Order: sequence, then C-alpha cells, then structure tokens
Amino acid sequence: MDKQAIYEQIGGSIDEMIRIRRHLHMHPELSFEETETPAFIADYLEELGIEVRRNVGGRGVVGTIRGGKPGKTIAFRADFDALPIQDAKEVSYKSTVPGVMHACGHDGHTASLLLFAKAMNEVKEDLAGNIVLIHQHAEEMNPGGAIAMIEDGCLDGVDMVFGAHLQSLMPYGKIYSRDGYLQAAESTISIRVNGHGSHGAEPHTGRDPILAASQIMVALQSIVSRNAPPLEQLVISIGSFHSGQAANVIPETAKMEGTMRVYDEELREMASERVKEVTEFTAKAYGCTAEVEVVRGYDAVKNHTEGIDILRHAIEDAYGPCVYQEIDPVMPAEDFSYYLQHRPGAYFFIGAKAPGEEHAYPHHHERFDFHEPALAMAATAFAAVFFETQNQ
Amino acid sequence: MDKQAIYEQIGGSIDEMIRIRRHLHMHPELSFEETETPAFIADYLEELGIEVRRNVGGRGVVGTIRGGKPGKTIAFRADFDALPIQDAKEVSYKSTVPGVMHACGHDGHTASLLLFAKAMNEVKEDLAGNIVLIHQHAEEMNPGGAIAMIEDGCLDGVDMVFGAHLQSLMPYGKIYSRDGYLQAAESTISIRVNGHGSHGAEPHTGRDPILAASQIMVALQSIVSRNAPPLEQLVISIGSFHSGQAANVIPETAKMEGTMRVYDEELREMASERVKEVTEFTAKAYGCTAEVEVVRGYDAVKNHTEGIDILRHAIEDAYGPCVYQEIDPVMPAEDFSYYLQHRPGAYFFIGAKAPGEEHAYPHHHERFDFHEPALAMAATAFAAVFFETQNQ
Amino acid sequence: MDKQAIYEQIGGSIDEMIRIRRHLHMHPELSFEETETPAFIADYLEELGIEVRRNVGGRGVVGTIRGGKPGKTIAFRADFDALPIQDAKEVSYKSTVPGVMHACGHDGHTASLLLFAKAMNEVKEDLAGNIVLIHQHAEEMNPGGAIAMIEDGCLDGVDMVFGAHLQSLMPYGKIYSRDGYLQAAESTISIRVNGHGSHGAEPHTGRDPILAASQIMVALQSIVSRNAPPLEQLVISIGSFHSGQAANVIPETAKMEGTMRVYDEELREMASERVKEVTEFTAKAYGCTAEVEVVRGYDAVKNHTEGIDILRHAIEDAYGPCVYQEIDPVMPAEDFSYYLQHRPGAYFFIGAKAPGEEHAYPHHHERFDFHEPALAMAATAFAAVFFETQNQ
Amino acid sequence: MDKQAIYEQIGGSIDEMIRIRRHLHMHPELSFEETETPAFIADYLEELGIEVRRNVGGRGVVGTIRGGKPGKTIAFRADFDALPIQDAKEVSYKSTVPGVMHACGHDGHTASLLLFAKAMNEVKEDLAGNIVLIHQHAEEMNPGGAIAMIEDGCLDGVDMVFGAHLQSLMPYGKIYSRDGYLQAAESTISIRVNGHGSHGAEPHTGRDPILAASQIMVALQSIVSRNAPPLEQLVISIGSFHSGQAANVIPETAKMEGTMRVYDEELREMASERVKEVTEFTAKAYGCTAEVEVVRGYDAVKNHTEGIDILRHAIEDAYGPCVYQEIDPVMPAEDFSYYLQHRPGAYFFIGAKAPGEEHAYPHHHERFDFHEPALAMAATAFAAVFFETQNQ
Repeated sequence: MDKQAIYEQIGGSIDEMIRIRRHLHMHPELSFEETETPAFIADYLEELGIEVRRNVGGRGVVGTIRGGKPGKTIAFRADFDALPIQDAKEVSYKSTVPGVMHACGHDGHTASLLLFAKAMNEVKEDLAGNIVLIHQHAEEMNPGGAIAMIEDGCLDGVDMVFGAHLQSLMPYGKIYSRDGYLQAAESTISIRVNGHGSHGAEPHTGRDPILAASQIMVALQSIVSRNAPPLEQLVISIGSFHSGQAANVIPETAKMEGTMRVYDEELREMASERVKEVTEFTAKAYGCTAEVEVVRGYDAVKNHTEGIDILRHAIEDAYGPCVYQEIDPVMPAEDFSYYLQHRPGAYFFIGAKAPGEEHAYPHHHERFDFHEPALAMAATAFAAVFFETQNQ
Repeated sequence: MDKQAIYEQIGGSIDEMIRIRRHLHMHPELSFEETETPAFIADYLEELGIEVRRNVGGRGVVGTIRGGKPGKTIAFRADFDALPIQDAKEVSYKSTVPGVMHACGHDGHTASLLLFAKAMNEVKEDLAGNIVLIHQHAEEMNPGGAIAMIEDGCLDGVDMVFGAHLQSLMPYGKIYSRDGYLQAAESTISIRVNGHGSHGAEPHTGRDPILAASQIMVALQSIVSRNAPPLEQLVISIGSFHSGQAANVIPETAKMEGTMRVYDEELREMASERVKEVTEFTAKAYGCTAEVEVVRGYDAVKNHTEGIDILRHAIEDAYGPCVYQEIDPVMPAEDFSYYLQHRPGAYFFIGAKAPGEEHAYPHHHERFDFHEPALAMAATAFAAVFFETQNQ
Repeated sequence: MDKQAIYEQIGGSIDEMIRIRRHLHMHPELSFEETETPAFIADYLEELGIEVRRNVGGRGVVGTIRGGKPGKTIAFRADFDALPIQDAKEVSYKSTVPGVMHACGHDGHTASLLLFAKAMNEVKEDLAGNIVLIHQHAEEMNPGGAIAMIEDGCLDGVDMVFGAHLQSLMPYGKIYSRDGYLQAAESTISIRVNGHGSHGAEPHTGRDPILAASQIMVALQSIVSRNAPPLEQLVISIGSFHSGQAANVIPETAKMEGTMRVYDEELREMASERVKEVTEFTAKAYGCTAEVEVVRGYDAVKNHTEGIDILRHAIEDAYGPCVYQEIDPVMPAEDFSYYLQHRPGAYFFIGAKAPGEEHAYPHHHERFDFHEPALAMAATAFAAVFFETQNQ
Repeated sequence: MDKQAIYEQIGGSIDEMIRIRRHLHMHPELSFEETETPAFIADYLEELGIEVRRNVGGRGVVGTIRGGKPGKTIAFRADFDALPIQDAKEVSYKSTVPGVMHACGHDGHTASLLLFAKAMNEVKEDLAGNIVLIHQHAEEMNPGGAIAMIEDGCLDGVDMVFGAHLQSLMPYGKIYSRDGYLQAAESTISIRVNGHGSHGAEPHTGRDPILAASQIMVALQSIVSRNAPPLEQLVISIGSFHSGQAANVIPETAKMEGTMRVYDEELREMASERVKEVTEFTAKAYGCTAEVEVVRGYDAVKNHTEGIDILRHAIEDAYGPCVYQEIDPVMPAEDFSYYLQHRPGAYFFIGAKAPGEEHAYPHHHERFDFHEPALAMAATAFAAVFFETQNQ
C-alpha cells in the first residue's frame, strides 16, 4: 500500500472538495429537515460504486468500502446539517436559502469525507480492512442524529470510530486533540418560580417571585464554588431572567433559562440534583414554589487513549512531527460523544484559520467561513488514521 | 344661612350629577390631552354666572364664587382626567373612546364639584367667605396638574383647601380620612446593570449582569429591614426584571423597574440614597456598573390637624355621628399633596361601594364603577366643610 | 375628698420616698431571688395597717386598702427586682451587693407605690372604692412575675389596673404614654445550622454551614421587607453569628442569636413562622439542616383607650395641661402587658431626667440613676388616676 | 558505576534509617526552633567526611558530595521540622517532647536523605557529578525555610533539584508525581467588617456588620463560579465567622478568616484582587467598611517536564515499570515550590501506607505514623534520580 500516493491523490482532489463544499454551502438544510444533502451524498457515493444505505436513523447516509485484504473496520463520521442563520458574507458561494447557513463547517466535513472515500475506494483492493462512512444529519439540534444512527446499526461491525471538526479560529496547518475529555457535556436548565402577585405597595399580600428567583440565581453559584470537586470542571450559567411588566406590580412568576457544562458524568448528575434542590428549597424559603427542569443535552466527548495514540502516530506519519498538537478541553458540546461510548476512537480538530488572517469569525457567526485547504488536511488525516489502525 | 336647605338642594340635584358624570364617563380624555372636559366644565360654570379662569397651569379650570359677606376663602379641588384602559363594563354610559376610560372616578369628582358650585352659587349673597373651585387636569400622570395650577395661582388668596376621592371598595355611607399622612409619596426606581456579555460556557471572560442584578434585588431588601426606622413606613418593590435572550449566553445588561412608597420626606430621601448606594456598590462588587434613577413621583398627602378637625365637625353637622371614620394611611399616591404643602386643609375619601355589593372592582380596573349616590355625599361634604370653616 | 390635700401630702413625703428608694438601692436582689425586698415591702404596709398577702405568685406582695365608700377597685403595680450589673456610680447609696444593681429604677417604683399607699391609707375612710397594691417580683427575667401573680389572684375583684415606669432619658416634669401599643412584644431567635465539616481545600466533601447561615441572615431580611404589612412594625435583628475556629477548615455548625420586636400578635405569629420557614428551607438549599427556636418573651403592652382617657384627665387634674404627653411606641418589652390582657387600664412613663442634665445614662447602664423628685410625680399620678376612675 | 550495588546497599541500610528516624521522632523540634536536629544532621554528615555548611538560611544544613568525575550537580532536599501536636500513639519511639510531634514524616525524610548521602559518599570517586544535600528547617510554618536557604546560596552551582514526601495515605510500593502543578499555592484571607453597633430593636441607628459580612460570604462564591476559568482550579473557603455577643445588640464588627488554594499564579493574583473588590464594595453597599488582607502563603509546586522525565525513567530503572504513578494535583501547600522556581527538577511522593493497613492516619493527625520500609524507597529513588540526571 503506497500511503504517500494516497495522500498526494487526496491533496490533488482539493478542487473537487471545494466545489462540493461550495455547492453544499449554497444549499444548506436545517437539522431534521435535510433531504437534498443526504441524497447528494448517497448519489455521489453510489456513483463511485460504493455500497450505500440511505435514511439511516432517519436521514443519515452510511457508505461502506470493503478492502481487498482482511483487517479492522474503521468508521469515519461527517455531519451535514446547517443552522438557522442568515448568511452575511459576500462571496460567490453565499447561501441561497434565506435564513439558513452552513455556519459551522459541516459542508466542509462532508466534502472531506466524500473525497477521502473516493480516494480510498479507488485503491480498495489493496486495503487491509474496511471503511465505514457515516454521513450524519442533525448534529446541531437536540437530540441529534448520532444516537438514532447508532441505534439503526451504523456502528455494526465497526472496530473503531473517528471524526473531525474544522475550526475557524484554530490556525491552519495543525491538527488538535487530547486524550480523555475533549468537549463538555451540556444540560439545559429551565426554572419557573411561582409566586403570588400583588400591588407593589402591598408586598405582604403576595409572594415576590423576583426576590425568590434572584436568590436562586445567587444560590446556584454555590454549586460550582462548594459542591464541585476543585479539580473537576463545571460551569452553570443563567442566560436569561424575565419577570414582570410594571414597576409597581409584583408579578406572579419569574423565569430563568441557563446552561450547564461539565465533563464527568457523575458530577453532571450531582450538579443537576443540586440545581433542583437549591432552586426548590430557595423558592420555598420565600413562600414560592419552583418548577425546575434540567434537560440533558449531548454527553461529553471523551477520546480513548487508544484512539489518540493512533491519531498522533497517523498525523506524524502523514505530516511529520509538530502538526499534531495537544490542547485543553473545550466547552461546546457535540454528539460525536455517543459514537465514542460504543466504540474506541477519537475526535479531533482541523485548524482552518488562514495564515495571516486577523479577523476570522467564530462558528455560528453570520460571517463564518474557513480556509478551504483545510479540507484536504481533514481527508488526509482520515486516510492516515485508517492506515495507522491497520498497524495496531 | 340655612345649611339644611343647601344639603337638601344638593341631595335633590343627584340626577343632574349622574347625568354629568355619565356624560363625562362616555367621553374620557387622557392626562395632558384634556380639551373637551375642561371646556365642558368652564362652560357649565360660566352658564351659572360663575367667574371662570381657563387653562390654569395648562388645562385646569378655576372658578370663583364670591360670598356676599366677608369670610375665609376655601378651595375645593376635583380632578378630571381619565386612564388608558379599555372600558369592559356593559352599561349604557360605557366609554365611547377606545382604550380610554374613567376608571378612577374623576368623572364623579367633577360632577360633584359642579353641583356643589351650582348650589352654593345660588345662595352666594348669604355666604360668608368665598369658594374657589379647582378643576384639575392630569392627576394620573407625572408630574401631574396640581403643581402647575398652584404655580399659576390657583391658591392665591385661598385660606384652606379640601378635596375628596370616591372609593369603590369603601362602603357607601361613610366618609374616611385621618390626621397626618393619608397617602404615601411615590418614587420610581429604574436600574440598569451593565456587565459584559460572554458565552455561557466561559463566564470568566464576561461579567454577569444577571448575578449582579439578582444580588442588587436581594440587597435592596435591607433598606426596609435595616435602614428604615421600625416605627415608620417604607416599601420598596421591584416589579420587573429583564435580562438576556438565550440560555447559553451571558448578556450585556439587566434592567429592573420598581416603586418606592413612603410617608416621611426625610426617610424618602435617605431611602433613595440607599437605593443608589446599594445598587452601585453591589454592581461594582461583581465587576459591573449600574445606572440608577430614583424619580420622585407625587409627595405624600399629609392632612393638617386643623383641616381634619373641620372635616370631622362638618361631617357630623351634615350627617350626624358615625359617618366620619378614621382610617389607616393608604399607599397610592395623589398630587393633592402639593395643595396641602401650600395651604392647610384635608383630603378625604367618600365611600362608594354599593350596599350589599359583593364584587366591587378596584380603581384602575377595566370594570371599575361606583355607587352614584356617593356623588351627593361628596358635594354635601364640601358644603358642610365650607360652613364649618366659617365658624373657625 | 380633698384631692389637693392628698397631692400635697404625697409631695411632702418625698424625703421618705428617697430614703426608702436609697435603702432598696443599696440592697438590690435579682429576679426570682428576692427575699428581703418583698419582706421589707410587706412589713412596711402592715405597719401602716394595710392588709397584706405575701408570696403571691411566688415572691410578690399584694396590699389592699378598702375605701370607706363604695366604688371601683383599682390596682397599681410596681416591680421590685434588680439586675446582674456591677454598680459603677460613686454615690452614698451605691449598691452594696457585688454585681447586682437597681439599674432600671424598680427601687423607685417601689418607693413611690409605698408612699402612695401611705397617703391613701390615711384617708381611706373618705375614699370611694378600693386600692390594690401590686408589688411584683421578677420583671427583668423571663417568664416574669406578672403571669404568676395574676394566676395567684392579684387581679381578683380589680376593675382597672395601672402602672408606671421611671424613664432616665425622658425629661422630668412630664408624664408620657399613648393609646394602644406602648411597648413591643419580644421573641428571641436561636438558630443552629448543621453542615458537614471538611478541609477548606475540599469543600465538596462537606456542606458549608457558614455559607448556609450567611444566606439565612440575608433571607431573614425579607420577612420585614416583604412579609410584614408596611403599616405595621416589625424588627428582626441577629446580634451574634459564630462559626468555625480555623481559616482552612470548614466547620460543622454555625450559630446565630437574635431578637424580634413587634406589636401585633398576629404579625408576631406570622413572622415567627416565617423565621422558621426561611431558616429551614435555606439550610436545605445548601445541603444543611437547621434547628430554629423562636421563644416568646413578653407580649406587647397595649393600653386601653379607657385607661388612657382616665390617665390624661387625671394628669391634667393634678398638674394642669401640658404635662401629659403622647409619644410613639417604644421597643423594650415589659410584662405589664399581661395585666392589661386581663383588665382595662394603662401603663405610662414618668420623666426622670434632671433638668439641665446632659449626660443621663440609659436604663441597664452601670451608671444609671434618675432624678428623685420624679418619685413624687409617680405617686401623685397614681392618686390622680384613682380619683379619676371614681368619676367614670 | 554499579547502580544495582548502590540500590542494594541503600536497601540494606534500612535498619539505620529506622534508628535515625525513631531517634528524631522521639526528639521533635518546632519550626524555627530547631537546634538539636540540625546539629545531629550536620554531625552525622561530617562524621561521614562530607563537607557541611551549618546555619544555612538560619537553621538549615547543606552537605556537598563531590563526585570523582565531571558531571552535573544535583540537589536533594529533606525538611526536618516537627508540629505543635501531642503525640497520641503508643509506640516505643513516641515523642518525648510534650505537645510536639513529627506528625508529617519529616523525621523520615531526614533519615532517608542521610542514608542516601552515606551510600553515595562511599562511592563518590566513581560518581560523575556532585550531590548537594539540602536539610531544610521550618517547612511547616510561613514563611518557611526554603526561601532563606536559597537566598543563602544552597542552590549555588546546582543544576537540578529534587525532593520527596512520604505519604501515609498512599499505598507503599509506588512513587507518585505529575508533570506541572503538583501542589497548590495557598493564600490566607482575613476580613474585618466595620459596621456601627446599635440596639437590636433600632437597626436604623446602626450599620449591621453581620448582614454585610454574610453578603460578603455569599458574594465570595461568585469568584469561583464566575471569575475563574472553568478549566483551572480555584478554591476559596471561609473557615471562621465571628461577630457579636448578645442576641439583641447589633455589634460593631464581624470577622472572617479563610483560605485560598490555586495553581496558576495569574489566577491567584486575579482572585486575590476579586476577594478585595467583592469584600470592600459589598461592605459599602451596606454602609459598612471592610479591611481585607490576602496574605500569600507558599507558591504552587510546579514540576518541570525535564524533572518528571528524569524521575520516571529513574524509577523505572530502579524498580521496573508500574511503580511510578501519575496522580492528580493535591491541595496542600509546600515550600519546595521555591526551589523549582530557581532550578529545574521535580517533587514526588513516596507511598507509605503499609500493605493491608485499613486505618492509616492522615498527616498532622495525633496518631500519624508511616510504613518505615518506605524510607528505603525514598533514598533509592534519590539515587536513581541522580544516576538518571547524569545520562541527560
């Protein structure tokens, strides 16, 4: 197997990657509403002669490349949904769908995986082991597409699983990850404090929900400061607090919405319980009641040591030393977590901030874009990872 | 001077009072937008041959009845503006102006004062002293009409001043007041906490205005509990708290609106200062800043002992014992306060809840109404008060 | 009955009053430990030929003077216990008992009542009605002597009851009281927060009682600011907060002690319940538990309108106008409250700050003293009150 | 150089180590009061013929073994002070000094370093490089002995520095450490809130320091929950809160003492500033003032990657794989931090909990003891580290 030839071929397909990426960029589809995108993907793979299963877990597409020689089966995942954001860039490939935009780079993920598939498929007879291509819908919206695709068998027969995310704020030319927790788990906090309204001049005839909710806000701080182990990570933030309409009327209710970010699952459970306890008892202290919901979003992405070792060696093999870089965990959540709960593997980031660029926009920004050569790095990394897995 | 005859004549004019009141009720005008109402009043008085000054302090009307004998000059005040409320009653005299309604009884005040004027004017040659009729605009909206009318001379030459308010929740047949503070002063509190927004997962890059505002809400409680003398009255209520749009974004600002009610002016000043101190320092403790405004609304209505003595004797004279009733102070504010800062006098309440009525609506309610015979009690009380002042 | 002669005789007995007062001052006895003092009182009254009952309700003394003519029976009360304070005055009549001192004027109350008794007893044949002399023990210490004396019959056959307290900070020459509440009810608050200790560097292994107790302190403020009617009076103060020994150890418990002052009994009950609710639920919000006790001290002293009317007329009769003065309620508690729960009457204050004195000491101060001529005013007021009751 | 022979010799000297350790255990000396201990150490080294400097930085002892061949100079440090704790063990080598005890294992550190010195000194002609023996006084008490010894030149000419701590709760047979932060920095927080005392019934005449301090306690929580980066570690705990003496008196002041633990120096500075800001502004919000001191204790112990690499290889060389174990950072502070600020190196822990032991006592406990064979592991680890440094 001539790995260098494969790497070069992938590098040489950058134009097609960009073409596909820009096509998808112009025709974005929202989570759980994807129809054209999965059809495009499935058609592309089928045209290559790759075995395809459509509508996996709803809207996902799974392709399988069977190598000519025995070996492990390795899955690679790319998500393909877009966001409800109006594209504000002025580029030729600007979104044509009002209010919908590939503002997180999933168009790029898809293009990379497709060209990786094309390159590997061409040499499949020489490959030891098989490649599973997981094109996932709905990563941007709870409950995500990953769980449904897994339940629908996308990991059946798979030995390891890998995935990558372009990062518009991380410099191009590097690939980033870490052993253990890479991305946090998220839960959403929703609190409604029920008091009893009254005239502002007669507070004793009511029960003030603004005061109760304010004290809940204050008391929630103690979960991080007192209940979380100092060596672990936990964030609890309330992002909205709304109550009342008039200066001189004590309202009936107050509402708060917030987010929790945490890596360790046990701490997540404890913190969720504490949010409920703190809220309910504090409300009662003020003669109010509270309804609290802590809704679990995605679990934490926790890389396997085995997966990271493979990734590190693979990147070194493809790019030499100093390209793989270990980073601290990040806070955004990602449903790749569920693949790693079922199979060993790793998730990693592809630097996609153009050299010299000073004003890169963050993901989910209306002017988000990325340095397109990163597409080839993503596809190359997949190939290198595949080869490395076969050495284990 | 045959007082009984006057009382009877006033009682006999109840039909006209009701007619006028209902006419005004059907054609309400908002504060500082009154044109038809003051014209109606002035025309009515002029037709009676009473000397009238229009546009006093803007939109007020002042009439003067000069008695045939020497004596004190006593002013009586009725306000005539309506509220931005959609009338929801089903009665023949329902408001014809969409979204505007006499939901506080000022139509009744006006009718009572006009018929009182008519009765007194007819016997003016026998009267010792003069009567000043203050028909005031814009009581419902800061800064009110009273200050402007006073500045425009409505109290010039006046020795004492009296006023009355119908009360839909106080039983008909009684007249209510008290020496000293009758109605509280009001100030409006407006707070804006400026923090620094950030992603909810990265609170350390921002300054959380929801937490700062919550602590301000909590800290404000201490002004009443710790800084106000236990024997004095102070209420500080925050009626609205709004901040943020998304669960996972820490916002830039938080806003609170509230009301302060207090009788003693020194305590009012101290409490206003404390609101500012508490808010500004608490915001700083959280790395935020705060803009605080405590805007003075009407001062407290503080009856003069002299005025209350006259009122009590007058009511006993007109109605016998047990009709005048001493009550605790109430919290709503009223710009009659300013008249009493310039002249001795008293403000009092006319019970206007129909006997046997179980479901009377409060003032400012969309179904507010009152027992119309109370109109005659108001006019009679004014007459009795006038006679009593001449005995002093 | 020549009232003036009586007043003059009382005035003339000032030397004996002072002698008795100073004797008692030199020989103070603590609450519930009084033996010499009640013996002295009882002996004095018996020597006058007055009928005496000893050990009433434990250590109290009740004397009865039966008038020669029919009339009402009026009780007058003086308390006679001292305080555990070391006398720091330099006077000839300084306390001879180490650590015990008449620092509240009860020696004076006793002397006044004895000389009042002597004067009235001499003319008893001319008196219409009877006089009951209630010499009460243990006013300074919960549960006080009043309840026990009442249960032991000291008010049997009594129509009305009066009492007076010398006031070292109120100017001599006036007598002060008010209709309704004169002195507040007191309850004592005792809170123990049970957390779970831990190393200060490992807060997550404990439950921080200092944080829970701090939040309880904060939350208690809301009872006054939100739950008490703005027109009523309530004070809740925590005077001590103690927890922990070392900077770097989170302790097991935190303790707070406080006081509640309130007039209205219903508000007192509500506030006590809220103290418990606020404390227990707030502790739970922090994973702690709390033990709360709100122990009732004396009830509020609430004068009867009938009693105050008699007092006012009596003082005018004895001293002319301008001596009786209406005051705001005061906060210290007093077990005279219980007599007024059983019989109509009034409690009042005798100004005892010497004219021109600039540095009078408050009651319970180690240098407390009072202007002794006030003793005669107290006794004279009792006489005047007695005469006035017989006019009703 | 026959390393195995050295390891065996050290292992064979365990009896002497125990003898020395027990001698020191019976004669403990408090920090900054050590006289016999450093004399014992210096004499021991001099008898071996090792060059010794006494009174280094006050009470420290520094020995130097010069190898026969050129090479790096490596320092090893052992502390030798004891604690003000009454020994409660029943053993033959129990402390003979009332109230003073080697309750942290420094006696063992000393014994290990002495026998390591003895073994190395015997083969010094064959050694490449030099060994510096740092016997440090006063580790247990701020400001510690390390800074003074460094200032007095104990690291002059030294290339790297290592140290070890016996750990009574970590299983014997392993050696523990980590790259980067191993032990936290400590700062001590001292807060005094100055209010204004008053009678508990008259809070408005004072400024309540208990309320202000309670709010400070609450507000301090936000530094960890809002200001510290979620991926970094910070603990702020208040361990004592004391204010007031009587239930019904609002006191003048409230005092709090606490501890801060943190690794990153920048976060430490920021958090210290925030403690001051939060405290001072919150006090002002309640009309109080605050005096805050955040006193720096020891800095964090931060191992160098170079030092840890040497340690890991050294332990593997001496004991084979699986003996060196990476751990999470711990919270206790240690002044070894300062050596690592001047020279590369590492600090590590020697497991000293006997196999099968169920009830080992923690350090600073009155029954603290450790499994003495760990002494040989400590000395052997030093030897292995020295040899490893010469390979670099």
